[in-house]
Amino acid sequence: VADFKIVDSAVLQPGEGEFLVRGHFLSVDPYMRGLLRPKVHYLRAVEPGDLMFGEVVGEVIESHHSGYVAGDYVAGHFGWQEFAVSNGQGVRKVDPSLAPISTALGVLGMPGLTAYFGLTEVGRPRAGESVFVSGGAGAVGSVVGQLARISGCRISASAGTDEKIAWLVEELGFNNAFNYKTSKDYHADVQRICPHGIDVYFDNVGGEITDAVMRLLNRHARTVICGQIAHYNEDKPAPGPRPFPNLLAHEARAEGFLVFSYSRRYNEALPRLADWVRRGELRYRETVAEGIDQAPEAFIGLFQGNNIGKQLVRLL
Amino acid sequence: VADFKIVDSAVLQPGEGEFLVRGHFLSVDPYMRGLLRPKVHYLRAVEPGDLMFGEVVGEVIESHHSGYVAGDYVAGHFGWQEFAVSNGQGVRKVDPSLAPISTALGVLGMPGLTAYFGLTEVGRPRAGESVFVSGGAGAVGSVVGQLARISGCRISASAGTDEKIAWLVEELGFNNAFNYKTSKDYHADVQRICPHGIDVYFDNVGGEITDAVMRLLNRHARTVICGQIAHYNEDKPAPGPRPFPNLLAHEARAEGFLVFSYSRRYNEALPRLADWVRRGELRYRETVAEGIDQAPEAFIGLFQGNNIGKQLVRLL
Repeated sequence: VADFKIVDSAVLQPGEGEFLVRGHFLSVDPYMRGLLRPKVHYLRAVEPGDLMFGEVVGEVIESHHSGYVAGDYVAGHFGWQEFAVSNGQGVRKVDPSLAPISTALGVLGMPGLTAYFGLTEVGRPRAGESVFVSGGAGAVGSVVGQLARISGCRISASAGTDEKIAWLVEELGFNNAFNYKTSKDYHADVQRICPHGIDVYFDNVGGEITDAVMRLLNRHARTVICGQIAHYNEDKPAPGPRPFPNLLAHEARAEGFLVFSYSRRYNEALPRLADWVRRGELRYRETVAEGIDQAPEAFIGLFQGNNIGKQLVRLL
Repeated sequence: VADFKIVDSAVLQPGEGEFLVRGHFLSVDPYMRGLLRPKVHYLRAVEPGDLMFGEVVGEVIESHHSGYVAGDYVAGHFGWQEFAVSNGQGVRKVDPSLAPISTALGVLGMPGLTAYFGLTEVGRPRAGESVFVSGGAGAVGSVVGQLARISGCRISASAGTDEKIAWLVEELGFNNAFNYKTSKDYHADVQRICPHGIDVYFDNVGGEITDAVMRLLNRHARTVICGQIAHYNEDKPAPGPRPFPNLLAHEARAEGFLVFSYSRRYNEALPRLADWVRRGELRYRETVAEGIDQAPEAFIGLFQGNNIGKQLVRLL
């Protein structure tokens, strides 16, 4: 928390071709940890003193841009701030009649899109297959499991509290889940809840849960490497059993996945996700921290698993 | 060597629908190590007292099978023996006018097919890309590099002697190679010989060479996990840096590959390989041990890298 500093500054005025946004919700996401390192591969690093990177959903309150009027709801990478001026680049409009606007940062935003494209494009589950998702109660994992359920798969997960597990199994229709914080043997627990092995592994965490899953892959299994939260605070990956001999023996595939590479296809996925949400087939939960001064703690809490579903920070 | 025993026994007589083969060459291959363990995934295990598994090329010397006559050359999994009776199952005929029959166990046999399907189906190199092959001077690796060269790629490799490296670079047209047995820093050496990173990694060895390569992958790189010879004598994989964070950052794929899954397509690849051999674009080398009593030593020598190119045992 001490690495973050909240500063007061004057609200900028939008110039010609720009508009001013009043943020309602800020998203904190595990991937942002990587931005705080010198070497980042897919996004620009955040340097000490910089505005912290992050997506915000809010309302346009003043506009000198032909495409936006006051009262429009928008989502964009405005950073950790309550007000922002934008020229519209990278901004998308949010329809508040579809669902609460906070969902534009969760199930109908980056995490939902991550689940959708990661599962369908890399995991490619077929009906009847066994899907395991690590971090099942997170913003991405909870959507992955429900999309796999909709695809007719058997779906199992790891999660960090009994409350999370109850939510997954009783409300979201997961077949089973185990509590990795009280587990004495990951391999035995994954084997118990995946008695027919694993065809698709959606990996949000890495580390020892992934080590256990690698021993339980079925032939031609696919691993979607979506997040490695167990490793984000390491300077270099801690050693573990090498997974390639297991991938070889099972002719299995593991593939890194970054949702940003699918940005041109977001509009293909969002209506489908919204439709499932409207019909109650895709449920979500939000954990909301109150006020921007809580943002650092909310962010750091992601790495202890303090959130259920999507972690947000309320700005207004 | 003490784990193997050579026994004399009477040559069996072929019955109706069978033929007798006199073996000329026996193939010893690293994958056979896995057959000597209790748990094997893709082939039947060899138990103590069993005939050791292995492919042989030889001549039919007596036939009561309508499809074979004395004088035919055939290749099949006849095991480590000088004579074998077969009903033709899993046997293919070998054309001695195409190339020396020993190539049916190497460049025009399983190792050549492994290189062909592993590279084209899993690695999918495009002209101009950078391909790295570990175990470059082995029966598979030497073909991989040449096929990548034919595809217009830049090709680098690891190998275990300066003689092997000279062969790869001066005779086979590899762009570069480094000696992993004298290297002080795998990562620095791989980086030196692959200055533009790695687009396709054909992994025959696993272990620390693979660890080094994982840090040098380009975006959307593909790793063909074909062999893990560094791990075949381990009861469980020795720990190393976990590769998934690297695969994630580069949206890279790693996929296990077993050539046996492509057996229905062997006839598509063999004429192409034979054509390249005939035109001198695809060269090969053989290391031949003399006599079946040398087979155990030749087999064990694979794990020390004693062979250049294909390791054979001459039976006749």
